[in-house]
Amino acid sequence: MQAHQTLADIQHLLNEVLAAPAQWQALAPFTDTDGDLAAQVLDEAAKFVDSAVAPLQRSGDEEGCRFEAGTVTTPAGFRAAYQDFWQAGWPSLACAPEDGGQGLPAVLECVLYEWLAGANHGWTMAPGLLHGAYECLRHHGSEALKAQYLPRIASGEWLATMCLTEAHAGSDLGLVRTRGVPQADGSVRVNGSKIFISGGEHDLTDNIVHLVLARLPDAPAGPKGLSLFLVPKLLPGGERNAVVCERIEEKMGLHGSPTCVMRFDDATGWLVGQPHQGLAAMFVMMNAARLHVGLQGLGLLEAAWQKASAYAQERRQMRAPKAPGSAASTGPDPIARHPAMRRILTTQRAWIDGGRVLAYHTALQLDLAHHHADATERAAAQRWCALVTPVLKAALTDQAFHGASACLQVFGGHGYVREWGIEQVVRDARVAMIYEGTNEIQAIDLLVRKVLADGGQGLCALLASLRHGLPQDDAANARRNALADTTRALAAAAATEPELPYWVADDYLRAVALVLLEWAWARIAAAPASQGPRWAEPAEAFATWVLPEFDMRLAIIRQRLSTAAADVHRRTAPAMAAA
Amino acid sequence: MQAHQTLADIQHLLNEVLAAPAQWQALAPFTDTDGDLAAQVLDEAAKFVDSAVAPLQRSGDEEGCRFEAGTVTTPAGFRAAYQDFWQAGWPSLACAPEDGGQGLPAVLECVLYEWLAGANHGWTMAPGLLHGAYECLRHHGSEALKAQYLPRIASGEWLATMCLTEAHAGSDLGLVRTRGVPQADGSVRVNGSKIFISGGEHDLTDNIVHLVLARLPDAPAGPKGLSLFLVPKLLPGGERNAVVCERIEEKMGLHGSPTCVMRFDDATGWLVGQPHQGLAAMFVMMNAARLHVGLQGLGLLEAAWQKASAYAQERRQMRAPKAPGSAASTGPDPIARHPAMRRILTTQRAWIDGGRVLAYHTALQLDLAHHHADATERAAAQRWCALVTPVLKAALTDQAFHGASACLQVFGGHGYVREWGIEQVVRDARVAMIYEGTNEIQAIDLLVRKVLADGGQGLCALLASLRHGLPQDDAANARRNALADTTRALAAAAATEPELPYWVADDYLRAVALVLLEWAWARIAAAPASQGPRWAEPAEAFATWVLPEFDMRLAIIRQRLSTAAADVHRRTAPAMAAA
Repeated sequence: MQAHQTLADIQHLLNEVLAAPAQWQALAPFTDTDGDLAAQVLDEAAKFVDSAVAPLQRSGDEEGCRFEAGTVTTPAGFRAAYQDFWQAGWPSLACAPEDGGQGLPAVLECVLYEWLAGANHGWTMAPGLLHGAYECLRHHGSEALKAQYLPRIASGEWLATMCLTEAHAGSDLGLVRTRGVPQADGSVRVNGSKIFISGGEHDLTDNIVHLVLARLPDAPAGPKGLSLFLVPKLLPGGERNAVVCERIEEKMGLHGSPTCVMRFDDATGWLVGQPHQGLAAMFVMMNAARLHVGLQGLGLLEAAWQKASAYAQERRQMRAPKAPGSAASTGPDPIARHPAMRRILTTQRAWIDGGRVLAYHTALQLDLAHHHADATERAAAQRWCALVTPVLKAALTDQAFHGASACLQVFGGHGYVREWGIEQVVRDARVAMIYEGTNEIQAIDLLVRKVLADGGQGLCALLASLRHGLPQDDAANARRNALADTTRALAAAAATEPELPYWVADDYLRAVALVLLEWAWARIAAAPASQGPRWAEPAEAFATWVLPEFDMRLAIIRQRLSTAAADVHRRTAPAMAAA
Repeated sequence: MQAHQTLADIQHLLNEVLAAPAQWQALAPFTDTDGDLAAQVLDEAAKFVDSAVAPLQRSGDEEGCRFEAGTVTTPAGFRAAYQDFWQAGWPSLACAPEDGGQGLPAVLECVLYEWLAGANHGWTMAPGLLHGAYECLRHHGSEALKAQYLPRIASGEWLATMCLTEAHAGSDLGLVRTRGVPQADGSVRVNGSKIFISGGEHDLTDNIVHLVLARLPDAPAGPKGLSLFLVPKLLPGGERNAVVCERIEEKMGLHGSPTCVMRFDDATGWLVGQPHQGLAAMFVMMNAARLHVGLQGLGLLEAAWQKASAYAQERRQMRAPKAPGSAASTGPDPIARHPAMRRILTTQRAWIDGGRVLAYHTALQLDLAHHHADATERAAAQRWCALVTPVLKAALTDQAFHGASACLQVFGGHGYVREWGIEQVVRDARVAMIYEGTNEIQAIDLLVRKVLADGGQGLCALLASLRHGLPQDDAANARRNALADTTRALAAAAATEPELPYWVADDYLRAVALVLLEWAWARIAAAPASQGPRWAEPAEAFATWVLPEFDMRLAIIRQRLSTAAADVHRRTAPAMAAA
């Protein structure tokens, strides 16, 4: 992916569609960051991505990471690119000035990571967790820990990991067995084994800071007995800690990122936050990480689209069918003119453009939630982030994989061979549907933990807010009303049918994603400078090929609701007859 | 995949649901093949697949094929398994006894190849084209060619290839440039380069028989100037022909099958069939091949389901939500009890079971079309094959990839690593959406070349025939009527809007696939022995999660129809106003 190809589009969405600079300049920390400064930052970021990171994508996949006797060697060029990256200050873009950061709005960091993932997903895994680790340590670390670690995590001089999963504990972190035993000097001895640790060991930085979920000796069973520990690869004195990489996984893709099995053998660590409150501290990382994974989805889909679009302009096969009155072709047409290929390409653009509006808007809400002067505004922004983050994570990574596969199809047989690089995007993208909580977990998080927790009120309020500032649209209102009605029906049914929301959570998340995308496209259409085929074609593709899924999802949920109602009737009828 | 795990299911579908033995025994060549003989053949076939072919799946992927100086070495064990395969008579199962074959019904061969593909897709590519080559040569070869090649292709002693694609000619075979120049001795000198030749070179058999599309010197341009030539690796005297494998492709998957770039340098060949009629002769191979690719889809999806289902029974994470009145769990439940995972697993079963009914029924129609005593019956069977083959090819390979990806999701992070083998199924399955005509080409073949060619009459007749022998079902009738109405509307609109069918061909194919699957599930339900959860659960999954897509597809087509009508109105209105 070439970031500079997307610069004008992204500037249009930030400035014309979202009026992003005016939004962040209303917040105290960002009053001095005007649109010109932001444009300059993005321009430099695009140059870095295109010149330093994108060229290593294919070699990183083919060479992969090598494991030997506990050490991990990343592909040629990865270390140099990372050293350039942190020394140029990119990791600290959105860190606070008091921690050595540049104090820029979150949305600029989001654009940077979208590009990085599109340019080289494997490489980007290394710095991808930095900002989450920074926020986690900043909010929950002791002053001593912060003094030792925060500046070097903010700058990216040291990289960080999240050590959650164990072989038997994946989606169910309550089963975690790793233990931490407090020592007299205030440190903790950590013992246990973790799997799927991205960047658990590598040669990109000298030190690696692991944030490890484990149990204190007096911990209650289950997820409420987990504490968070900081366990560095190198101890403050410089000696090696008892943290060992046992092996790295052979994976479907993402070969540029070492996925490590890590063993902690009486490793020295320190508690982060309160005992048994590790999950809450870790979720500071997880929520930021989930938005970033959604952005990875956008970057990967843009990468697939750029490849397929370029190929479709060049490759000529058969004459395309013509509308009456069009000039007949004299030879085979570029396949970009064939309806089946045009449909694939414009559909991906509809997802990328609409998805960008949603993701950037969410990033703006992140800053609003922290920094807005008005508590009501902060709460509304917080509600948006809580409800929309799982939707973006699931819907955008799902589209990254399926849309990249559709783009592979544009290449025909050439898409299945390595040469064109599109099959790598499909393989790399697949993991994003799994990590940071599988997309099924995101759907349950949305429907069960967030929407139904308040009987659907928060979601219905968010739906109602989508009308503001846009021209009246009866069809969109009808869809939002239907979704609100279905939400209330689900809330009512869940009381007697606790299994029901778990069956339809995926459909519910898709329905929410589609009304959000419809809103995003209405925002694009409402911007005066969104004229011409660049925005009209994907807008039409969205309405024609993407949005019809909404009715199907609602029909599936309603069918299950009526089945559930019949079941309840069947179960309760005999009791009522007996009464 | 373990074939024996599927034996009882497949016997149920063949014997109870389709009454297949009675159908084939009504045809002259198969009167002696009773259900017991068929059961014995399938039992032996399952043993061979499970013991000789399945164990090489993962090693074949990891080892891959090696290319060195024009020779290709297949993974360890591949040659021995193939030698056992042909010497045991498996390739000749459905070949005519006069050619040394066993003269069994096509449907038995279909089950064999479904299993082989599920057990080891890469290995199965080698014999996968044999039967097509046999049919092609049998119908179009000269007596001399048949005497030399037919028995050894029927037996599988020699393997065969289809050499169609060139670097610049993929979906558009009219662009093929390879040339054949007739010689005084009746042979032809062939020159040119072909790509994507599965099994173009290997060590499985001593000789390889290439069927090559090329142009005679006096050939007209385009697809009507293509002739078919037989070009063997070893000439009849035993000397090496001028056929060179230049390299093999690095692919996303299917590493057990060498995908070759082949160069013909004054190679000696012979014309098969009439000059400039090569495409027609080749399509004898292509149509058989397309049904086989659909069966590959079934086998791959079964492989993915078997892996995911076994994992979901073992893996325990979190307590599953429970219907009221169910006993509470005392610890984490098998993930097979979690609704999101149950939904994935039963949805794949709905596709596999329904898809098998359709594929086996189509295989029976193949034999009926050739051997039925009554011309009307033969024509109806032929119509079924012509219309349903592209639907099966596209819909079953699409589901193989997307369903295998859903099964990968059941494994969470474990699905993305090689260890469990599920990611290999996803990578292998991807190619089946491309080869033997991309799925977009299948959709155009169905809608433009077949359905609209007779104004939709054939398709509507097929839809009407789906009622026969089944209980009245108003909802199913309504869907079929809606599809018939939409078909006629498309036929009417296509006259003035030639681009329109190309835009909606994918939706149309999906809609046809869904009414066919609905029919398949009605057939299963109508069989007395289809009681119990084994068949009731996927039946419910089909109705709940799969079938709702039908309304969406029809809504998309209708929306395009109304847009097209508005466009025509806009274009013609000024002219009418002027008149």
